[in-house]
Amino acid sequence: MTVSNLFEVSSTPLSIAGVRLNTVAAGIRKTGRVDTVVIEIAPGAAVGAVFTRNVFCAAPVEVSRQHLATTTPRLLVINAGNANAGTGVQGHRDALDVCAAAARSLGCEAAAVLPFSTGVIGQRLPAAKLVDAMPGAIAGVTDDGWEAAAKGIMTTDKVSKVASVTTACASGRYRVTGIAKGAGMIKPNMATMLAFIATDAKVEPAALQALTREIADRSFNRITIDGDTSTNDSCVLIATGQAGGPGLDASHPDWATFAQGVEHVFVELSRAIVRDGEGATKLVAVTVRGGRSEEDCLRAAYAVAESPLVKTALFASDPNWGRILAAVGRSGVPDLRIEEISISIGEVAIVAAGEPVPGYDESAVARVMETAEYEIAIAIGFGPARTTVLTCDFSFDYVRINAEYRS
Amino acid sequence: MTVSNLFEVSSTPLSIAGVRLNTVAAGIRKTGRVDTVVIEIAPGAAVGAVFTRNVFCAAPVEVSRQHLATTTPRLLVINAGNANAGTGVQGHRDALDVCAAAARSLGCEAAAVLPFSTGVIGQRLPAAKLVDAMPGAIAGVTDDGWEAAAKGIMTTDKVSKVASVTTACASGRYRVTGIAKGAGMIKPNMATMLAFIATDAKVEPAALQALTREIADRSFNRITIDGDTSTNDSCVLIATGQAGGPGLDASHPDWATFAQGVEHVFVELSRAIVRDGEGATKLVAVTVRGGRSEEDCLRAAYAVAESPLVKTALFASDPNWGRILAAVGRSGVPDLRIEEISISIGEVAIVAAGEPVPGYDESAVARVMETAEYEIAIAIGFGPARTTVLTCDFSFDYVRINAEYRS
Repeated sequence: MTVSNLFEVSSTPLSIAGVRLNTVAAGIRKTGRVDTVVIEIAPGAAVGAVFTRNVFCAAPVEVSRQHLATTTPRLLVINAGNANAGTGVQGHRDALDVCAAAARSLGCEAAAVLPFSTGVIGQRLPAAKLVDAMPGAIAGVTDDGWEAAAKGIMTTDKVSKVASVTTACASGRYRVTGIAKGAGMIKPNMATMLAFIATDAKVEPAALQALTREIADRSFNRITIDGDTSTNDSCVLIATGQAGGPGLDASHPDWATFAQGVEHVFVELSRAIVRDGEGATKLVAVTVRGGRSEEDCLRAAYAVAESPLVKTALFASDPNWGRILAAVGRSGVPDLRIEEISISIGEVAIVAAGEPVPGYDESAVARVMETAEYEIAIAIGFGPARTTVLTCDFSFDYVRINAEYRS
Repeated sequence: MTVSNLFEVSSTPLSIAGVRLNTVAAGIRKTGRVDTVVIEIAPGAAVGAVFTRNVFCAAPVEVSRQHLATTTPRLLVINAGNANAGTGVQGHRDALDVCAAAARSLGCEAAAVLPFSTGVIGQRLPAAKLVDAMPGAIAGVTDDGWEAAAKGIMTTDKVSKVASVTTACASGRYRVTGIAKGAGMIKPNMATMLAFIATDAKVEPAALQALTREIADRSFNRITIDGDTSTNDSCVLIATGQAGGPGLDASHPDWATFAQGVEHVFVELSRAIVRDGEGATKLVAVTVRGGRSEEDCLRAAYAVAESPLVKTALFASDPNWGRILAAVGRSGVPDLRIEEISISIGEVAIVAAGEPVPGYDESAVARVMETAEYEIAIAIGFGPARTTVLTCDFSFDYVRINAEYRS
């Protein structure tokens, strides 16, 4: 258990009063593996959510957006094994059927149910199996279902992803627990693949939505595995209010402390996704400093973080910095001047003022690149903006996993 | 030998009067393999050229641009094994030293020499070796050096790339012969890795430059292997005029016929580059129709053509069209509506009006995808614009080649 001044990290997921979960095998996966998670939210909670910006979003994303505009959610239904994307009008109907069945079991209106799906795109969702599974799934919800739920939503993930903290706010010790899944088709745009985070703090709905968006932008929206934004990305933050205490918003003195605990959970889940990137052997932070704007930094950082040539060099622990330089040079940042560029890997300066640092020790860089986590730092010499994007290397296993995914 | 109405394709490179070549081993590669090509151009020729838009272009690109602005080239000096990029002021000096040495041997001004380099980025060019090699290289130029030159400029290329036609113009039968190299770091932007094409027609200099740019935009600038634009991309088109005949330009009745022959050579070289893409097993044309503008079509086509998930599915011959749909959806084309999207592979319609085509035969698509060359056709339903981008698949060998390149 790590302790900071503002929050305490828990190595096992803390239960959140007002949230109960269950994980079942509805038969969507052929293997009989668990594939369906329900998350029940007690009345009185607030819910924030952000979704993919892929314009061809999946049916459950459309339905969730519509339902969120109608009422406060009482239940999340998440299935793995089928994304219900590219499924047209039928896919929309299937998602609604699942919501209706779940609502009957829980005793709420259908609009209070949010559906989420992840898995293969373009195949019809076996909705009847989910409909049949709802009564048992909902009857079995428990406080301590987080770890099982994290496993239940996995697809090509090798490890389940959970993070949990207790914030030390003056008004109370609020818990935050979250789960996420994702290992490929990862370049979230306003949200990651799937992430569900809950706190027992009471948070004003508008403040909760703003916080969800803001923190997602600093965590899930700063990672890339393959540059492919999914059709199903969704991130939900639930505040049950069951810890008591005042309704928090940005004007409350506890807000910064509370937000930092929530951000820790988001960031830990983001890092876990990249670390588990398909075929990944390394987690690499690409930091770009010196932009006129964050947009400058993001362009350069993503050009490097998504370059197949850079990513294969990361896999090989090869200090082939020319590939980094070339990626920055094609990134589209306006008015780049090579004389202003510097590059370092780990603590080793490689390029300064656009030229190789005299006598720089390539073997020292190779040693850094053999470690599991390190930083590539790039300066572009315009202004004070900076940003960091997390990426991973590109290995034989990335090709194997994605060439074999459906077989 | 294939015959069209407008030009005749030659399976071996035709010599071009006014162009002589030689290929030598200057010792830049450790293996003793040939690494240096000189191309001598007779006085009176016109030369068009386009270069990379990577803002961190290599020293030889800078020098070639400056020299072209000064005088008409008499000699091209091309080395493989070292890109002379990311080499700062020293790299610029090294390129100038090679030009000066070559100019002394040929007896021309240094500005009439254009340098080109390809190979690893960020290591100093062993200029002294090139300087020493110039007298012998230039003394040995011959008419029939095209095939050897195509081999001499290879780096990770598995096959040499040559194309040759004779155009059937009313004013004369003009020859066009070209060579190119490139297999990785390929998303040319106004030029490919390296391509040198010559004709014996007489062409007005301004018309030749316009033709070079226009045809490069329809050939080399429509291919991608890994989305990484090189620092060294250069494409040169030489018109020696030694076949006699009138000075051609866009107003001449022979222009369309002549231009079509030149375009054939550019396109064949472009296709040869993608077919030889690092680790590639397939050549896939991604055609997007229905854009309001070519820009719409290019955005969607490159999003698909560069998606690692699409490219691994191509490798696996897996009709995982959801990945294609997801890539179009994140491409940034404004106002996309899924109801307007259709997708086919080969002749098989898969998606129409945004929904899977009822009863479409997945095994038929898999059979298409097992062939060496096929088309993915996407319609986006706005207007009349269309474009085609060539790409290849993403295989284990891509990772192997790029993880091992420098070792």
